[in-house]
Amino acid sequence: MHPTIETDAVIIGAGPVGLFQVFELGLLEIKAHVIDSLPEVGGQCIELYPDKPIYDIPAIPVCTGRELASNLLKQIEPFAPQFHLNQEVSTLEKQADGRFLIGTSQNQRFLSKTVFIAAGVGAFQPRTLNLEGIEAFVDKQVFYRVRDPEQFAGKKIVICGGGDSALDWALNFVGKAASVTLIHRRDDFKATPQSVAKMRALCAAGEMQLLIGQITGFESSNGYLTDIAVTNIDGEVHVIALDALLLFYGLSPKLGPIADWGLDIDRKQIAVDTACFQTSTPGIYAVGDINIYPGKKKLILSGFHEAALAAFAAAAYLAPEKQIQLQYTTTSPKLHKALGVSPTTFE
Amino acid sequence: MHPTIETDAVIIGAGPVGLFQVFELGLLEIKAHVIDSLPEVGGQCIELYPDKPIYDIPAIPVCTGRELASNLLKQIEPFAPQFHLNQEVSTLEKQADGRFLIGTSQNQRFLSKTVFIAAGVGAFQPRTLNLEGIEAFVDKQVFYRVRDPEQFAGKKIVICGGGDSALDWALNFVGKAASVTLIHRRDDFKATPQSVAKMRALCAAGEMQLLIGQITGFESSNGYLTDIAVTNIDGEVHVIALDALLLFYGLSPKLGPIADWGLDIDRKQIAVDTACFQTSTPGIYAVGDINIYPGKKKLILSGFHEAALAAFAAAAYLAPEKQIQLQYTTTSPKLHKALGVSPTTFE
Repeated sequence: MHPTIETDAVIIGAGPVGLFQVFELGLLEIKAHVIDSLPEVGGQCIELYPDKPIYDIPAIPVCTGRELASNLLKQIEPFAPQFHLNQEVSTLEKQADGRFLIGTSQNQRFLSKTVFIAAGVGAFQPRTLNLEGIEAFVDKQVFYRVRDPEQFAGKKIVICGGGDSALDWALNFVGKAASVTLIHRRDDFKATPQSVAKMRALCAAGEMQLLIGQITGFESSNGYLTDIAVTNIDGEVHVIALDALLLFYGLSPKLGPIADWGLDIDRKQIAVDTACFQTSTPGIYAVGDINIYPGKKKLILSGFHEAALAAFAAAAYLAPEKQIQLQYTTTSPKLHKALGVSPTTFE
Repeated sequence: MHPTIETDAVIIGAGPVGLFQVFELGLLEIKAHVIDSLPEVGGQCIELYPDKPIYDIPAIPVCTGRELASNLLKQIEPFAPQFHLNQEVSTLEKQADGRFLIGTSQNQRFLSKTVFIAAGVGAFQPRTLNLEGIEAFVDKQVFYRVRDPEQFAGKKIVICGGGDSALDWALNFVGKAASVTLIHRRDDFKATPQSVAKMRALCAAGEMQLLIGQITGFESSNGYLTDIAVTNIDGEVHVIALDALLLFYGLSPKLGPIADWGLDIDRKQIAVDTACFQTSTPGIYAVGDINIYPGKKKLILSGFHEAALAAFAAAAYLAPEKQIQLQYTTTSPKLHKALGVSPTTFE
C-alpha cells in the first residue's frame, strides 16, 4: 500500500475532457491528480482512433486523436498534473470530514476534496474469452495482459488475437518460450504489415505456428490447464498442448465500480446539473461522455465546456467564502502567472 | 433595396461563435448567411485583441485572436457561408408563415426559417462625440466613418483620435484636403510608431497640424458647422475653422435593436434554455456572450458548445419529422462528404 495522497481534486479519466479539466482547474489554482485505466493518456482518442482525423474540434480544421491528446498535454504542462495510469478506480467513499477516499486497482489511495468523473464510456478493460470454466485459470495460466514477460520463458504458450498486442508478444516470445502458437479467427491481421510479415517468415521457418480458428474448449488435469481445442471454419478441431494462454481480443469500456458510488445514474450515464456539472453528490462532478442532461450530445467540445463550468463550481465549493471572478487569458496578469507566460513578449 | 434572400438560417454576428455556428449547421446540412456590423469577420477577437495571445481554447496552447478567426474560417470553408458585413441587423419580424423577416442597415432583407443571435456584447458602433447639438451635423459635416474619401478633397478637415484610423486618414488627406488638423486628448498615440513618426514629420514641415486637447464646443452659421473649440489641459481654448470633422474614438458594442425583438432579455442578455439554446421565441437561438443561463461563463469555448446544441435543436425545428442522429467526423461517410474530405487518404 502506497502512502495516501491528499489533494483538492482527483480526475478519473485521462481522455481529452479529463486533460482539459486539469487546465480549467489549473487556471483557478486547483492542482489535480489524474487516474486512468489505460497505460497512456488520451482515452478513446488514443485507444480507438489515434490516427483517424477529427474535424469538429473548434478552430482546428483537422487533427488526429493522437495530435489532440498531445496538444492538450502541452496546454496543461504549466499545471504539472500527476498521472496515475494503468489502474482503475475501484472504490470511492465519502469520509466524515467531507473528503472522498479513492482507491485504485494498484492500491493507490487518495483523499480528495473534489472528484471529477471524466470516464467517458467507462474504463477500458480487455475483452474476455467467453468459454465456460476458463475464468478459473485467469492470472494463473490465462492472461489478458503481460505484466512479467519472464514468467513465460521456457513455456509452451498460445497467443490469441490479430492486432499489434498479439503479434508483438508472439514475435517477442519466439526463441524465449518453448513454443509459440498464434491463433486468430481469420487470416487477416490488424497489426502493422511489418509485424505480419515477420510472423509469416517465422512460421515458414518453423519457429512459431499460426492457426486460424477459434478456441472452443479446453482440458485440464488436477487444476492445471493442459490443452485447448481450436475449431476452424470447416469445423475441424485442433488440440494444442500449452502452459499459458495470452488473450489479446482488444479493449472494451466498462462503467465498472462507478455504478456503486450512490450517484444518480440513468442507463450508465451520470445525471448532472448543467449550471455546475455536479452529480447528485456535492463535490463530485461528471464531465464528458459519461454525463447526461437535457440536450446532451456526446461531443468532445461539449466536454470542454462542461469541464470549464465544473471547475468554477468546484472552486466555489472548495472556498465558499471566496469571490471567484471570471478572468480572461488574454488580459489577466494572474492567469498569465499561472500559465507561466509573459504575453508582452509573445510574437 | 436588394432582392430578399430566402434561407434556412441567418447568423447575427461573425465572431468566433458565429463562425463556429456555420460549422455546426453545415454538418447538419443547413446553409447559413452571416451578418456582422464590422467590415471583417472575427468579432471582438479582431476588433479588440487581434494580436493578443489566447490560452484557453481547448487543444490550442496559444493563438492570437486573428489566428483563431482565421482557423475558424478555414474550418467552415466546406460550407461556403455567405457573409454580409459592414451592416447591422435593424429589424426582425415574425411572418405569418413562421419565417423571420430580417432587415439590415444596408437594406439587405432575409426571409429565414431560423435565426442565431451570436452578437456577443452587441454590434460594434463608433463611440460618438458627447457634445450637445453636434448630432444635427452627423453624416453632413461630422463623420464617424469615411465612406467616400473624395468628398473631403479641397476641404478644411479636422480629425480626432489617437489610433490607427485617425492617423491613417490624417496622413491620407494631407495634400488632398485644404488643411488637415489632428486633435487628440494627449500627446501619446495608440497608432503604429511608423504612422506617428510620419505625422510628426508632416507637422514639422507645416503640412498638417497637431493639437492636444478635447472638443468642448462648436459654432455654426445658417445650419453650417463653421468652427470647433478645442480646450487643452491648461484650460486654453483654440478655435479652428473647418468644413468636416472626422471622429475616430474607437468602437463600442451596443445591443441595439435586438432589445426590441420581444425576446426574454435580462440585463442586455438573452435568456436561453440550455438543452437547445433557444430563446423565448421558437426558431430563434442565442449563443455565445449574448446569452444567459444558470452557470453561464462568457468563454469562447462555451459558445462553441452552445452553437453545437443550437444546431441540433434547429435541425429538429426545421425538419420535425426527421430523425437526427449524432454522427462523428472521424467515422461518418455522410459528414466526410459534407466536409469534402476523404479520410482514407489523410496522412
